[in-house]
Amino acid sequence: MNKTRGRVTLPSEGNFLNETKELMERWGADAIRDSDGTKLDDDIKQLDAKIYTTYFVARGHNDFAENRIEECQQLYLMSMFNTAVSETVEIDFMKGYFTEQVQPDYIHDPKKYWEVIDRTTGEIVEPDNWEVDEENNCVRVKKAIPWHEYTVSFLVFAIWDPTHMYNHITNNWGDKPHDIPFDVRGPQSNEYMRSFLTQWLRDNPDTDVVRFTTFFYHFTLVFNNLGKEKFVDWFGYGASVSVAALDAFEKEKGYRLRPEDIVDQGYYNTSFRVPTPAFLDYMDFIQKFVAEEAKKLVDLVHESGKEAMMFLGDNWIGTEPYGKYFEKIGLDAVVGSVGGGATLRMIADIPHVRYTEGRFLPYFFPDTFYDGNNPVLEANENWLTARRAILRNPVDRIGYGGYLSLAYKFPEFVAYIEKVTDEFREIYDTIKGVKPYSGLKVAILNSWGKLRTWQTHMVAHALWYKQIYSYLGVLESLSGAAVDVSFISFDDVISDGVPEDVDVIINAGDEGTAFSGGEYWKNEKLVSAIRSWIYNGGGFIGIGEPTACQHEGHYFQLATALGVDKELGFSLSIDKYFVQPVKEHFISADTTTFDFGESMKNIYALTEHTEIIEYSNGEIHLSAHPFGAGRTVYIAGLPYSEENSRLLMRALYYAANKEADFKKWHADNIYCEVHAYPSIRKMAIVNNSMEEQTTVVYDGEGKSKTVTLVPSEIRWEAFPNEG
Amino acid sequence: MNKTRGRVTLPSEGNFLNETKELMERWGADAIRDSDGTKLDDDIKQLDAKIYTTYFVARGHNDFAENRIEECQQLYLMSMFNTAVSETVEIDFMKGYFTEQVQPDYIHDPKKYWEVIDRTTGEIVEPDNWEVDEENNCVRVKKAIPWHEYTVSFLVFAIWDPTHMYNHITNNWGDKPHDIPFDVRGPQSNEYMRSFLTQWLRDNPDTDVVRFTTFFYHFTLVFNNLGKEKFVDWFGYGASVSVAALDAFEKEKGYRLRPEDIVDQGYYNTSFRVPTPAFLDYMDFIQKFVAEEAKKLVDLVHESGKEAMMFLGDNWIGTEPYGKYFEKIGLDAVVGSVGGGATLRMIADIPHVRYTEGRFLPYFFPDTFYDGNNPVLEANENWLTARRAILRNPVDRIGYGGYLSLAYKFPEFVAYIEKVTDEFREIYDTIKGVKPYSGLKVAILNSWGKLRTWQTHMVAHALWYKQIYSYLGVLESLSGAAVDVSFISFDDVISDGVPEDVDVIINAGDEGTAFSGGEYWKNEKLVSAIRSWIYNGGGFIGIGEPTACQHEGHYFQLATALGVDKELGFSLSIDKYFVQPVKEHFISADTTTFDFGESMKNIYALTEHTEIIEYSNGEIHLSAHPFGAGRTVYIAGLPYSEENSRLLMRALYYAANKEADFKKWHADNIYCEVHAYPSIRKMAIVNNSMEEQTTVVYDGEGKSKTVTLVPSEIRWEAFPNEG
Ligand SMILES: [Mg+2]
Ligand SMILES: [Mg+2]
Ligand SMILES: [Mg+2]
Repeated sequence: MNKTRGRVTLPSEGNFLNETKELMERWGADAIRDSDGTKLDDDIKQLDAKIYTTYFVARGHNDFAENRIEECQQLYLMSMFNTAVSETVEIDFMKGYFTEQVQPDYIHDPKKYWEVIDRTTGEIVEPDNWEVDEENNCVRVKKAIPWHEYTVSFLVFAIWDPTHMYNHITNNWGDKPHDIPFDVRGPQSNEYMRSFLTQWLRDNPDTDVVRFTTFFYHFTLVFNNLGKEKFVDWFGYGASVSVAALDAFEKEKGYRLRPEDIVDQGYYNTSFRVPTPAFLDYMDFIQKFVAEEAKKLVDLVHESGKEAMMFLGDNWIGTEPYGKYFEKIGLDAVVGSVGGGATLRMIADIPHVRYTEGRFLPYFFPDTFYDGNNPVLEANENWLTARRAILRNPVDRIGYGGYLSLAYKFPEFVAYIEKVTDEFREIYDTIKGVKPYSGLKVAILNSWGKLRTWQTHMVAHALWYKQIYSYLGVLESLSGAAVDVSFISFDDVISDGVPEDVDVIINAGDEGTAFSGGEYWKNEKLVSAIRSWIYNGGGFIGIGEPTACQHEGHYFQLATALGVDKELGFSLSIDKYFVQPVKEHFISADTTTFDFGESMKNIYALTEHTEIIEYSNGEIHLSAHPFGAGRTVYIAGLPYSEENSRLLMRALYYAANKEADFKKWHADNIYCEVHAYPSIRKMAIVNNSMEEQTTVVYDGEGKSKTVTLVPSEIRWEAFPNEG
Repeated sequence: MNKTRGRVTLPSEGNFLNETKELMERWGADAIRDSDGTKLDDDIKQLDAKIYTTYFVARGHNDFAENRIEECQQLYLMSMFNTAVSETVEIDFMKGYFTEQVQPDYIHDPKKYWEVIDRTTGEIVEPDNWEVDEENNCVRVKKAIPWHEYTVSFLVFAIWDPTHMYNHITNNWGDKPHDIPFDVRGPQSNEYMRSFLTQWLRDNPDTDVVRFTTFFYHFTLVFNNLGKEKFVDWFGYGASVSVAALDAFEKEKGYRLRPEDIVDQGYYNTSFRVPTPAFLDYMDFIQKFVAEEAKKLVDLVHESGKEAMMFLGDNWIGTEPYGKYFEKIGLDAVVGSVGGGATLRMIADIPHVRYTEGRFLPYFFPDTFYDGNNPVLEANENWLTARRAILRNPVDRIGYGGYLSLAYKFPEFVAYIEKVTDEFREIYDTIKGVKPYSGLKVAILNSWGKLRTWQTHMVAHALWYKQIYSYLGVLESLSGAAVDVSFISFDDVISDGVPEDVDVIINAGDEGTAFSGGEYWKNEKLVSAIRSWIYNGGGFIGIGEPTACQHEGHYFQLATALGVDKELGFSLSIDKYFVQPVKEHFISADTTTFDFGESMKNIYALTEHTEIIEYSNGEIHLSAHPFGAGRTVYIAGLPYSEENSRLLMRALYYAANKEADFKKWHADNIYCEVHAYPSIRKMAIVNNSMEEQTTVVYDGEGKSKTVTLVPSEIRWEAFPNEG
């Protein structure tokens, strides 16, 4: 194969010109970027490559931000719960917070902007019944009801950018000044961000791509009094709040938000909370503002003849790429970090940009690149999970981050990436813009719908949590599966019904969360629309606690369709006769060992029509059920694995009543997959594992053959001529 | 030891005189009973023993009951859920029911007494919009909303007594007539029950004790269309419902019940449901009626010079021995079946009777008494668990059931029971009426309080269910522990606060159940009373999902007192730093392996003050926490075992802040216990196991010594003279 070039971005650093050239050559890189801590030398900027330069809009300008506390970013925070042991409660509301990050806002009247809440009743305490002691950061509640609990919701100024704070503390930067985040909603800040960028664009003629990191508001990241992470929500709107924003919101939406609309009992409207109408309004309000302001910066970039790229992270709040205002920003590109297939698709599927770029793992940092460790393993794993997704929809570019000099010390790694970059370009050149064969159309149904495309069940970006991995597996499986995936919201279904072209709906999550749906399932329009749709032939897969909301005799509101419900104790008196698993089932035909992850307890069958596929420990973990002309499947949990990916695919085909199509373009071996591209008459047979695999491969015309693939192999074949 | 006699009841049967005499002698029996299937011969009735005769009030009188369908017992039943696929729904409401047991009541106007409910909205369907097709047992709903689900709540006549039905079907009694249960609320039935008993008392001069089995209303037991159990609730009021009862209720309570008040979404108000005010009113109404009517029968018995005994089972609904009307019945005695310590205490603690009797296991039935099986094992286990409870409060008599001739064939068994009966009499003669030493006063807090004393978390009497054993262990442990136990309700605490003399409150159960409390925990009086009480020095132990009800930022409403809460997903963004277990703790000092039974997931510590005792799989299963001067303990579940009994005792002493008293009258070995009786200066050291045990024993004055006990031994010792 001839050496190819392009679609690859390298980080570089000072005093590394020759090695950079060598790696550019070997990896076929055509772009070079700086990093948070590195600056590019002039000679590197003169190489035959696009130059990306990181740009921070709303921090790193302390000359401007200092002494402008009134335009500093703000947050609403909630104090701890305080039990009244008498009629007076003293609330040390800053307890547990990091005073180097946040300081109470005493500029704006606490009586207007703060709230003291009786958390035993949920009632607001009259402002006359409390006072603020500014000297001691203390709220004194009078006429409290003894043994009720009280919280204070209060405004603070954020005086340290969270990412800067994190890096500063982690790397012991000592008395290096703290980056102060300013709010571009302030008139001086707004003027400043534009004039500074204008000048900066003039001062950086070698920059081809301005890499915004990101725009105005950091995802919520609050530290505790020990300088450690206290609260992290990658979707959190906390830092977008300010007095100016609250006032503008009232003007725009016609009503005033309460602090509680933001503080949300201390849950801060994480994406696991079923969103309130007020919070949805607030998000809309921020997204619109962010898009308008970001567009101004992008326009400046374009006027200077450069490209505008956005990093999907850090200060990305309000820019949601699947939101309704994103298109207006006018970006050229988005770059984001790739942790696996789902995060790859999260980037690759972004509409309204000319190109997307995935930053691959591992980062060239000493935690991976140290003597005795083989970084190839992590790179190989990352590549295999991402490749599945790339074969469905490729990002336009890949790149790396960190210290290039570190990676350079690992020749095997350099050689492996040389192979990966070539393989990426080969895939890209073959299939970009080509619709891959999809056997089914799958819709993920939750409170967020399209807005959080490929982003369900996430807390901090791509971190593992015990409570989420059994659901994240579903997205990861789908990201590289031969199905079309869309994300729809309950509100979508309530107002427009189930979209025409969906074969199977998936509802996955724990009861009460935005992903399962909570009280939404009491909405008669929602349940009616879905019942009707299934009954008329639709497929529905429930995972975990789907449609769960105790109401009128059922916990799962689609229990009669699912054929299962969860025993909460109320129906223990009802005999549970249906406990015999079927001998074999289409869904479990490739499964040797079931793994439901955190799984779900106390699921039982409602009727003899429930096809019990897995029953153990006195409960069902996998079952199917007919409902009219449609079918449903229940799964207790589905962490990502090759076996579970296959199980999910079979469940989808079964639910869709299309088992006959299952082996069209198919590999029997669960570690292998077939991706077909009918319009170019090509297919890729891939080995997703790091071992050799032998598999029967089925083409789209019912023919099969046995092939053996070396570890990680991707084999391209043209469609057979005949047929 | 001299042979003692008395306090023992034997079953007997026909043609078994000499063996009966022999067993009476060896077991020291002073009473003989018949059984459901057996009749006593005249010669047996002349033995020197009290004769118990089983008496059925409201069944077994088909001559009377036949052709009196209007006074037959009734039930409200709910149909299955029916999905409307068009504007008309045909509901085959009898589907799944057993027509030999129940038949629709078409005598009373369905439009008045039935209800069709839209279970999607919870709304009642206008009677104009449905009609009954009596010929086909079908309800036709018109103007249904497509894709909503509909149920019919309908009245039936119960034409077969459930216990008779069960025995009939189990024993293949063929075309033996079915006992028809009649309702003594009917005027003819009421007259009949009294006149029949009057005559019966005359006809049975040898009977000393009339053993009522029981009175009027069977616990709810409904069979399915295959003649198998469909619904069983040992506390169920289903069979007490009738048109007459509904009308009388309205007159007495001033409002009319809806069918839904009884049907309860198909859950039928099992004791796991937080009771509604209407259902509590209904129970009160039935209990009052049952007590009044039962009193009339008891008076007749007394007038005839006999004793009235009630069997705690079968038709016991409305007679609740811990209820407020029980005393009025005027019974001499209650007999019940003993499955372990908790059921023993359920009988022994019954107030307002002259004596109680426990029927011990095993039943003399062929399922235990067959060649090759050793019934001594079951008897020994039953005795050891019951003996713990007897040492706290003895029943006044013990007895056995089944076929005496079967038991007679097992000489080792006969010899073992000889030993048990002597041991029982020795215990009884030593401690009856003597207050045993109690180190603490413990209150079980739930929706039912005193009414369901020793009866929490039960479905069918003493059967094992996956969802209850982790809570039943608490009762079983307490039944033989050196603590005083009371049962209090949320309403008690709301109206009167926590009783003065309680040291520790236990709240145990799954979220939403009557035992945990559900929405009760939103009641500010309840949470305030308990917070205040703990803060001022009380102890609180939460097991499973204590105080659980998602509200204002917490799932456990006493989270700040407990120091733990459960992660439902809403607070995943909050860092959980408190995961380090303490090195050792008073509560776990005797535990080698933790067993939390079904356990509980996702429990986490709220602060650094939470003393984590067991942490595994990323969650807490055992912890303690200070709250003011009080202490709390969280336990994920506590199935019964010697080890868990000890853990609970330690948790109680820790919560009560009385660790220093823990070893007063104490045995170090977890298989042994010490019961002390200060007023008679005696103590019993018991080996609760079937192996030899060596233990250090502590007396009440701080002295200790080592003793070795043979399997199952009980050793009586006088208090030391000095001190
Ligand atoms: Mg250039
Ligand atoms: Mg006699
Ligand atoms: Mg729950």
